Amino acid sequence: MTERLSVAVVGAGYWGPNLARNFAASPDWDLAVVCDLDAQRAQGVADRVGGVPISQSLDEVLADPSIDAVAIATPARTHHPIVMAALAAGKHVSVEKPLADTVARGIEMVDRAREQGLVLLTDHTYCYTPVVMKIRELIAEESLGDILFIDSVRINLGLIQPDVDVLWDLAPHDLSIIDFVLPGGIDAPTVTAQGADPLSAGRACVGYLTMPLAGGAIAHMHVNWLSPTKIRQMVIGGTRRTLVWDDLNPQQRLSVYDRGVDIAEQSKVTTTDARAANISYRLGDTWSPALPEHEALAGMVAEFAASIREGRGPRTDGASGLRVLSVLEAAKASLSRAGAPHPVQNTSRVSEPQS
Amino acid sequence: MTERLSVAVVGAGYWGPNLARNFAASPDWDLAVVCDLDAQRAQGVADRVGGVPISQSLDEVLADPSIDAVAIATPARTHHPIVMAALAAGKHVSVEKPLADTVARGIEMVDRAREQGLVLLTDHTYCYTPVVMKIRELIAEESLGDILFIDSVRINLGLIQPDVDVLWDLAPHDLSIIDFVLPGGIDAPTVTAQGADPLSAGRACVGYLTMPLAGGAIAHMHVNWLSPTKIRQMVIGGTRRTLVWDDLNPQQRLSVYDRGVDIAEQSKVTTTDARAANISYRLGDTWSPALPEHEALAGMVAEFAASIREGRGPRTDGASGLRVLSVLEAAKASLSRAGAPHPVQNTSRVSEPQS
Amino acid sequence: MTERLSVAVVGAGYWGPNLARNFAASPDWDLAVVCDLDAQRAQGVADRVGGVPISQSLDEVLADPSIDAVAIATPARTHHPIVMAALAAGKHVSVEKPLADTVARGIEMVDRAREQGLVLLTDHTYCYTPVVMKIRELIAEESLGDILFIDSVRINLGLIQPDVDVLWDLAPHDLSIIDFVLPGGIDAPTVTAQGADPLSAGRACVGYLTMPLAGGAIAHMHVNWLSPTKIRQMVIGGTRRTLVWDDLNPQQRLSVYDRGVDIAEQSKVTTTDARAANISYRLGDTWSPALPEHEALAGMVAEFAASIREGRGPRTDGASGLRVLSVLEAAKASLSRAGAPHPVQNTSRVSEPQS
Amino acid sequence: MTERLSVAVVGAGYWGPNLARNFAASPDWDLAVVCDLDAQRAQGVADRVGGVPISQSLDEVLADPSIDAVAIATPARTHHPIVMAALAAGKHVSVEKPLADTVARGIEMVDRAREQGLVLLTDHTYCYTPVVMKIRELIAEESLGDILFIDSVRINLGLIQPDVDVLWDLAPHDLSIIDFVLPGGIDAPTVTAQGADPLSAGRACVGYLTMPLAGGAIAHMHVNWLSPTKIRQMVIGGTRRTLVWDDLNPQQRLSVYDRGVDIAEQSKVTTTDARAANISYRLGDTWSPALPEHEALAGMVAEFAASIREGRGPRTDGASGLRVLSVLEAAKASLSRAGAPHPVQNTSRVSEPQS
Repeated sequence: MTERLSVAVVGAGYWGPNLARNFAASPDWDLAVVCDLDAQRAQGVADRVGGVPISQSLDEVLADPSIDAVAIATPARTHHPIVMAALAAGKHVSVEKPLADTVARGIEMVDRAREQGLVLLTDHTYCYTPVVMKIRELIAEESLGDILFIDSVRINLGLIQPDVDVLWDLAPHDLSIIDFVLPGGIDAPTVTAQGADPLSAGRACVGYLTMPLAGGAIAHMHVNWLSPTKIRQMVIGGTRRTLVWDDLNPQQRLSVYDRGVDIAEQSKVTTTDARAANISYRLGDTWSPALPEHEALAGMVAEFAASIREGRGPRTDGASGLRVLSVLEAAKASLSRAGAPHPVQNTSRVSEPQS
Repeated sequence: MTERLSVAVVGAGYWGPNLARNFAASPDWDLAVVCDLDAQRAQGVADRVGGVPISQSLDEVLADPSIDAVAIATPARTHHPIVMAALAAGKHVSVEKPLADTVARGIEMVDRAREQGLVLLTDHTYCYTPVVMKIRELIAEESLGDILFIDSVRINLGLIQPDVDVLWDLAPHDLSIIDFVLPGGIDAPTVTAQGADPLSAGRACVGYLTMPLAGGAIAHMHVNWLSPTKIRQMVIGGTRRTLVWDDLNPQQRLSVYDRGVDIAEQSKVTTTDARAANISYRLGDTWSPALPEHEALAGMVAEFAASIREGRGPRTDGASGLRVLSVLEAAKASLSRAGAPHPVQNTSRVSEPQS
Repeated sequence: MTERLSVAVVGAGYWGPNLARNFAASPDWDLAVVCDLDAQRAQGVADRVGGVPISQSLDEVLADPSIDAVAIATPARTHHPIVMAALAAGKHVSVEKPLADTVARGIEMVDRAREQGLVLLTDHTYCYTPVVMKIRELIAEESLGDILFIDSVRINLGLIQPDVDVLWDLAPHDLSIIDFVLPGGIDAPTVTAQGADPLSAGRACVGYLTMPLAGGAIAHMHVNWLSPTKIRQMVIGGTRRTLVWDDLNPQQRLSVYDRGVDIAEQSKVTTTDARAANISYRLGDTWSPALPEHEALAGMVAEFAASIREGRGPRTDGASGLRVLSVLEAAKASLSRAGAPHPVQNTSRVSEPQS
Repeated sequence: MTERLSVAVVGAGYWGPNLARNFAASPDWDLAVVCDLDAQRAQGVADRVGGVPISQSLDEVLADPSIDAVAIATPARTHHPIVMAALAAGKHVSVEKPLADTVARGIEMVDRAREQGLVLLTDHTYCYTPVVMKIRELIAEESLGDILFIDSVRINLGLIQPDVDVLWDLAPHDLSIIDFVLPGGIDAPTVTAQGADPLSAGRACVGYLTMPLAGGAIAHMHVNWLSPTKIRQMVIGGTRRTLVWDDLNPQQRLSVYDRGVDIAEQSKVTTTDARAANISYRLGDTWSPALPEHEALAGMVAEFAASIREGRGPRTDGASGLRVLSVLEAAKASLSRAGAPHPVQNTSRVSEPQS
């Protein structure tokens, strides 16, 4: 039997308790310590998982040679120093999204992990849900054909965040999912973003983000804190089939439609009329695959352990976190310029193994 | 009792039969003639309304002094010459949307009608539906408060049009509705549009259109010919209430939510923390008003007659058609420049009475 | 090419115009005459199908040797005399549901048609819809396995009929469908019916009808004129799969669920505990077959012609009308006795060929 | 400030942990002990609420004079002996539904509690949900007018219980709700029940229960363990308004429809034609009241304390448990006689204070 790995959870705020609970319940891990500057918060989390030690000192935790990995759930602006220190101490790292507050800092983190031969996992939790794993599988096996468009809506009457706008708050979910299900991940040269702050809340409360995808396709996200109704829906249209994921419909979360438009290949180069004659419409069956029930975070925790043991990059590695971050940074720039298209920094270099 | 007005329907294609049926059934109108270059098509339409005369000659129709008005349902590129000829002949005119194929031609038409003192009605049919009239009323009586955002989705597996892209095909519906329900109509300085033609169909099949509204608000439209599921939904968020119009739910087409975010006025100028402290959330009742059942086109036909008799502009006048057209033209320009914001030509001057 | 058959439509009330329109449009039929005591009503129907002759005399119509068949859409209490006269005149007959107002009269009609070698079709229109034909096919090919239960809900704010209660108004739809999709048709020994007339309208406005099916299964119908929401849903549960037909959801009218309870065969005879141990639950995929779009009545009209030409019983023959009628009559008796189970008259004898 | 009451939770199976958690969190109660024959189960529950004492001896618990009340969550067949012992020991009692396994035993329990002047609460948890409390309020204030019909559907792919059929498993929910919202509670003279066991599971897996209500109204329940889709819906039709409660729609759980049929009063005694002339249909607005969010069991726990302190019967008293039980017992009898109507034992005598 494999020996368990030892992990420290750093940050006992909103997400830390979920991490602690899942590491504690995992056969792969020993939860060694919960670390937070606020001892009371750390103790609260430790109590709920049956009495794990706590620490107020990150240095102490990192200095402990028995600890293999740290799972970081602190505010985004603190990711860079904590991750860099953890890597310097030889620890494998999982870190909340967004990976960092700037692309430049994110690149440093990813580079450093690669140099040290350590695992750096971005906790894109949605990518470990059964439905997203199924979507990735459907695309990988070419059930959808070529991707034509992705349209995502994530709206709700939501908490107006004190420090980030609605794009930084919600779009990372959509971007991390799109990055995960597209073979090769997001590779958009530019992005446009529109937003509005009609309540004068100090930041955009309604946001739209658009980016071109390979082959003339397009991805679009609508995020909104002001909607009275809650919608979490993503449509991924393909040449063969189109899927609709309605996350609020537990009875039929994922539907795959064998419907679409077919254009005969030769018609693409001919005249308008000839082209019209070669368009046809498919109205086939709909299929809704059964999905297993399991908690996404348990999957992340298992993948973190597996990637460490197998010496490989995790499914949601630092590079994926970097791609998401690059789009967010470009979206911020576009938003500040009234929606003018803004180039996305290409971070693919950093994610390749060095020769 | 008022005497009936006499009308000619010009164009017996897709929309003409609906016009003919509604004019024939109206107590305000005598349907004098159905006019189309294709006699067989004209006859088909005439037969279905009980044997009205037909004509293949527009000149003949316009020369007939007994005819008060013409209702034009021909392709958009023909609107300018036909409308100009009808106005020159002293006829009142209703014309299919879009008003014209360019803003410049649309302005000529509107100017000419005003000079002649004739009614020019743009047939924005949706504006005569019970639900849109109710929405206009709710906004006018300030039930929603200040408008914060408008989000419209109109997607379906739709016919790829041979001559126009999805924005020109579908967005006029949304734009005409928004223009109608907003007091003062659309007044956006710029517009951005994104689109994709991932099937190489020769025109955008997926489109997004965004424009700023007064007071920091935003309007956004998603139109799509490639979606396997049909959605026709508009959300209009306000400071007091938010409405959701789901046109495919006949049992609850319109819902008004007394839910939202309130920001205490003084907080808007203070620091982040103080501001957070002054945000509150309302979770009140939902209300779905009963809507009368009547055909929209019957309302348009009645409004056309009333505006002629009362010597006033119709509810959907030429100026509204011009505002919609200006946004479409700007959207086309933005689309061709990868979504860069494009100014919208201000046409308000032309819609004002000349001194 | 086959020669067309000649048909007279008798009855120009609510349903007659639909019959006339479909016979007129059919390649199988010549619509010879529309017959109604009220000449004006007959003329109205005749006009709408392009000027067919009318008649006010049934005798005249039946005496015409060029007429092959009559399609009867008169009130239920008149079915017996009209059908008997038509059969006596050697005409094939289609007749509105319910077949007759009593089982005894229905039996006479079916017996007479058989003796004469004439087709007697009961117009169970729902049985010609694409969705019901698909359901029949799924059951016939054993996709559902053994039937476990059928539950049908048909409720709406409906017109309170002047002469029949809600069970006689609405349940014939459900019964004819169940009869059509079950191999062998309805074969229930007893039926129970409950109802209520809480508005003192003079007849039940809410009704429930239950009957045992073969193999311990059960069928249940809920019909209701007082519901503010409209529901038309039927669930058919089987040992292999279960289907849900939601007739008000055009985007997914029919869903087939690979979900259910499995009981290992040996467990059925053992003790409670052993049995519990042998129960398992399947949570498989859901599948929604694409359905063709066509008008049901066109299918009925084609089947009427085919059964005449091929000298065979039609898909919805007199015997099926008789089975539905027997259940309705028994339900009436149960309702009048506070829901006590009432035997259903077995009419299967009459539908068999005589030796 | 009021002193806390002391409670023992008896039974640490499925429901006990929820009771323990809510009593532990309540400002009204001290959770003194968790009692179960199985020490390990008791300890598990005690641990999760922060280390309460456990006991394996009911006698010991009842002998403790510091304990004011016991909350019983053991199997139904054990309710009678445990409740009688607790009452004999002078403890107030809350007990899981159904109150007992027979009406006769239930009557003994209710009589005994009354004689002793102790509170006996039946834990009809649904009656403490915000939605059911709102429904009761709407009916009490006559928003619905006279009740015309109640139709409840509670179906799902559910666990086949080893000891009870689907009516005893699920219908107590519907019956306790109906009893709670109807002024005066359920007062049905008879009940009919149909069921089926098509899988030979040893008990009905599909069940229907019907009972007449005052004024010619009707109540009907459909419970089903074999449905692939989950529905939890109750419609309550009234002369003024009708409400629909869809418990699986958190965004609009309760809708109140101002729709219905109106019959002019004088018409009820006149002829059919006159009556028809006096029927009209209302199609008014729909209204969905906002509902507070709170856990139902917290409300039960508070009501238990309040009824003890105020020396009054609780909202869901023993008598309500008895009314529900009487219907279930009659339903069982009806089911065993093929759905023949069966009289419901009138238990109202026992719930009245003795003079």
